[in-house]
Amino acid sequence: MSLQLIEIGEIITPYTSIEMCPNNVQTTDNLCEIKLLPEFRAGLTGLTLQQQILVLYWFENVERNLLQQKSSMTKEYIGTFSLRSPHRPNPIAAATVKVEQLTASSIFVKGMDCLSGTKLLDLKPAI
Amino acid sequence: MSLQLIEIGEIITPYTSIEMCPNNVQTTDNLCEIKLLPEFRAGLTGLTLQQQILVLYWFENVERNLLQQKSSMTKEYIGTFSLRSPHRPNPIAAATVKVEQLTASSIFVKGMDCLSGTKLLDLKPAI
Repeated sequence: MSLQLIEIGEIITPYTSIEMCPNNVQTTDNLCEIKLLPEFRAGLTGLTLQQQILVLYWFENVERNLLQQKSSMTKEYIGTFSLRSPHRPNPIAAATVKVEQLTASSIFVKGMDCLSGTKLLDLKPAI
Repeated sequence: MSLQLIEIGEIITPYTSIEMCPNNVQTTDNLCEIKLLPEFRAGLTGLTLQQQILVLYWFENVERNLLQQKSSMTKEYIGTFSLRSPHRPNPIAAATVKVEQLTASSIFVKGMDCLSGTKLLDLKPAI
């Protein structure tokens, strides 16, 4: 009950199918929009261009009971917590990216690895 | 409904009150234990000593409706998403730390900033 999250916005990327998504955050020129819902936009003040931010978002349609799975690197089965796989008990994705553009409602960054329309959970300065 | 998290373990630190907690992850010699619940321990295989991991955990008893708040640095009110404050719509904390010791049930790391007993949400390799 207390561990309930809410959607605060969405991430708009060039990727409309899982097959198109990169495996992880990557160096790419594709600009992605992190767009906040109107009621959360006041929380963006203070962010600055070129700042490194941590973006937390939600992996949809994943298997939450897998504790061991095949590594895409070694093809061996290892523990979920030693992998970045979206299939995990709490499917929270994390990406550290740089603020490229900033508006009153959105942040534009490069290199996000998720489907367009992915639910945004949190943004904070990276340290 | 779909954005529901589960507790996968707890973080044991030297801090038993908010006043004792450091403001953020810090360089310190205090060893902290990240202890998984029995049903999630199989997920630890593959982690290695000295590896950098991202730890996600849950800030309890926070204000989830604050979109602007006072910066502890500048004392000015700025947006929640430009701060690392625990008071945020989705109070997920993130720390990048190094694996110092490893057992079948726990990871030991330095520098965690949270109360002892904090709920663990996820662990993954840092990139």
